Amino acid sequence: MAIAELSPSYPRARVHPSSLSSRFSNPLLSRRRFIPLRPSRPNGVLCSIAPNQIQVPVATPADSAGKKECFGVFCTTYDLKAEEKTKSWKSLINIAVSGAAGMISNHLLFKLASGEVFGYDQPIALKLLGSERSFQALEGVAMELEDSLYPLLREVSIGIDPYEVFQDVEWALLIGAKPRGPGMERAGLLDINGQIFAEQGKALNAVASRNAKVLVVGNPCNTNALICMKNAPNIPAKNFHALTRLDENRAKCQLALKAGVFYDKVSNVTIWGNHSTTQVPDFLNAKIDGRPLKEVINDIKWLEEEFTNIIQNRGGVLIKKWGRSSAASTAVSIADAIKSLITPTPEGDWFSSGVYTNGNPYGIAEDIVFSMPCRSQGDGDYELVKDVLIDDFLLKRLRKTEAELLAEKRCVGHLTGEGNAYCDLPEDTMLPGEM
Amino acid sequence: MAIAELSPSYPRARVHPSSLSSRFSNPLLSRRRFIPLRPSRPNGVLCSIAPNQIQVPVATPADSAGKKECFGVFCTTYDLKAEEKTKSWKSLINIAVSGAAGMISNHLLFKLASGEVFGYDQPIALKLLGSERSFQALEGVAMELEDSLYPLLREVSIGIDPYEVFQDVEWALLIGAKPRGPGMERAGLLDINGQIFAEQGKALNAVASRNAKVLVVGNPCNTNALICMKNAPNIPAKNFHALTRLDENRAKCQLALKAGVFYDKVSNVTIWGNHSTTQVPDFLNAKIDGRPLKEVINDIKWLEEEFTNIIQNRGGVLIKKWGRSSAASTAVSIADAIKSLITPTPEGDWFSSGVYTNGNPYGIAEDIVFSMPCRSQGDGDYELVKDVLIDDFLLKRLRKTEAELLAEKRCVGHLTGEGNAYCDLPEDTMLPGEM
Repeated sequence: MAIAELSPSYPRARVHPSSLSSRFSNPLLSRRRFIPLRPSRPNGVLCSIAPNQIQVPVATPADSAGKKECFGVFCTTYDLKAEEKTKSWKSLINIAVSGAAGMISNHLLFKLASGEVFGYDQPIALKLLGSERSFQALEGVAMELEDSLYPLLREVSIGIDPYEVFQDVEWALLIGAKPRGPGMERAGLLDINGQIFAEQGKALNAVASRNAKVLVVGNPCNTNALICMKNAPNIPAKNFHALTRLDENRAKCQLALKAGVFYDKVSNVTIWGNHSTTQVPDFLNAKIDGRPLKEVINDIKWLEEEFTNIIQNRGGVLIKKWGRSSAASTAVSIADAIKSLITPTPEGDWFSSGVYTNGNPYGIAEDIVFSMPCRSQGDGDYELVKDVLIDDFLLKRLRKTEAELLAEKRCVGHLTGEGNAYCDLPEDTMLPGEM
Repeated sequence: MAIAELSPSYPRARVHPSSLSSRFSNPLLSRRRFIPLRPSRPNGVLCSIAPNQIQVPVATPADSAGKKECFGVFCTTYDLKAEEKTKSWKSLINIAVSGAAGMISNHLLFKLASGEVFGYDQPIALKLLGSERSFQALEGVAMELEDSLYPLLREVSIGIDPYEVFQDVEWALLIGAKPRGPGMERAGLLDINGQIFAEQGKALNAVASRNAKVLVVGNPCNTNALICMKNAPNIPAKNFHALTRLDENRAKCQLALKAGVFYDKVSNVTIWGNHSTTQVPDFLNAKIDGRPLKEVINDIKWLEEEFTNIIQNRGGVLIKKWGRSSAASTAVSIADAIKSLITPTPEGDWFSSGVYTNGNPYGIAEDIVFSMPCRSQGDGDYELVKDVLIDDFLLKRLRKTEAELLAEKRCVGHLTGEGNAYCDLPEDTMLPGEM
């Protein structure tokens, strides 16, 4: 039991009574009976301050009204509006992170807490979703977040039930996914992870903010995002993203290397399609220092035959060198993906994100999650970029990654409400070095 | 050979000719013959762009003059003064990080690159020091830094020779140290790591900026900092720091928990003395919301008997929960330590750092590195805080940690130039969960 194992630094851990009762009184939670439940954990939410140990009662402020779950020092109350330093801050936002005990999250959570992603006037609550197996590690992560004393990080809670963790979240960063077992191919992974994302979609639908933004990182991320979206009909389909930003960043770096320029000179790079080996890094529309890339890099053979492979092999090469997968740069790319939605896109540029295809101007099949070029006004929303070139070479590759995503969708019909699944994925297209 | 193992994304790796020749022409490097050399690695510095692969010649700017070592995309040239976005930036600074392939660095390097530590108008060059064994992992780290596209990160080089890596550095963050072997106590660790820090001190003395700031994290960090300082007589003794900021941060969090307030209410917490179990977290001078802490926390028994243990056991508890040592929060505390030196200390507050005791106003023995309360005007320098209370309880504990540091100093006499070592450390005082 986690309670018995609590650190001596926590005087006495206990379930917050109001949290316990809320599990059974919230009518939304009655939907849980239809969901394959993982083992229940009655004491999954901890609060390490008992009322009689708080020596200085601080007036309970509006900010903490309705706060039911907390970890350690994040159980203490505060009033942002009462203080000179913080009264101009925005209202607190809730951010859920799944796979919170994993290595990518271990980088990302500290970035979020620092203010680097959402801004230095944006206080945040982090809601960490883990598993039964990772629960102690989650406590360790929460302890390290405590010890970091980030002023903007006002609340941290940990849990293993998405219906609790996703309550009122404005952002859900879905990183957790089962890794591939030995011999497992993409189809097997689609099924096993699809079930997780179907459940998480239902939970988001039930308890998250009605305009929650959802970024899926766990693989296969495009189809996981589709499954999640289909199970959350009350959240706009446009709000679901699959992460292809690491691929975009890697593509920009390789184009910079090839052109012999610093990477800040490379813009307008689109990753099209699936986050798999069928993905299409687009050099046709890319620019170097504002000029069409092909005017600068004239090695067409390299662009057509080597460039894509280099990007796709990057993760595998990194694992060989570094001994583990690329957690730090993945976390950076997640931060980039979020920042691209909450800050205006620079004039003339765009960013890639795996988004819902309905209404796209490129002729891509509807009803899949496909990475495309996006622009944002910084309000969390985006629009697809209209003026992009598509030549025969690009089109042929778009068709291939589109076909793969349509096949992946057929594999998960049982999870999207479209009926029976029929799985005919022709080959294993997992990227080297990915889970 | 690292060259043969280079990733396919690097068209052709080669030693930069000017870098090779500089190894033998720099008169400072002739001192190397007196230093116990680790195995030489002639191709330790890589540049993955061959001149004939750079298709767009960019005018070589002043910024990159004299640049001899580089990794991947960081070999490309740039001119910060030529561009609207960057021309108001400060001049590039060189930051060396040892133990660069380790987990603490894996968090810290990305923080440095993001601008979070040195500011968003401060371009940086990262010079990564690793070992023969970790060289491939260093390449992996450099690849992830490339893929992160941080605009402020202009140069990255990797190496295993401190005389190359420390060239012209303004900051040296010395994280790397040998971990304790089975059965090894503090005395053994002092000797084995002391030799590393003696060598690195000599290298800093020979090639670093004359006003370089040196922050020692590798344990036993106080005495390692002393050894490093003694071997670098040309760098002001005041510039050497041993990290006790993680202890300070943990102390603040525990005091906040105990007081039932958010951690931003806790100030004026000093960690005195050694980064070991004799360290003295000072609750006498600490404040909660501007009031003396003891007016708020009246559980004197807890303060005197439990508080220090809780902080010291924190690392051990974290390892049990999280399965590894606290890399993320350590990196945060390193960032905090640096920021405390380059931004003015808030009015009335202070921060802890292990610094040279000569001239201290507390009656601490001279000629050791002892953590004390510091204030900075934000210029990289600091002054010791004069108006602190020292009562009998605090004094007794200061004497104990002082005695330990004097004993540690006797253990490393052979490394500080004071003659033969005489080691009489009475007990093992390594902090739980530390290397």
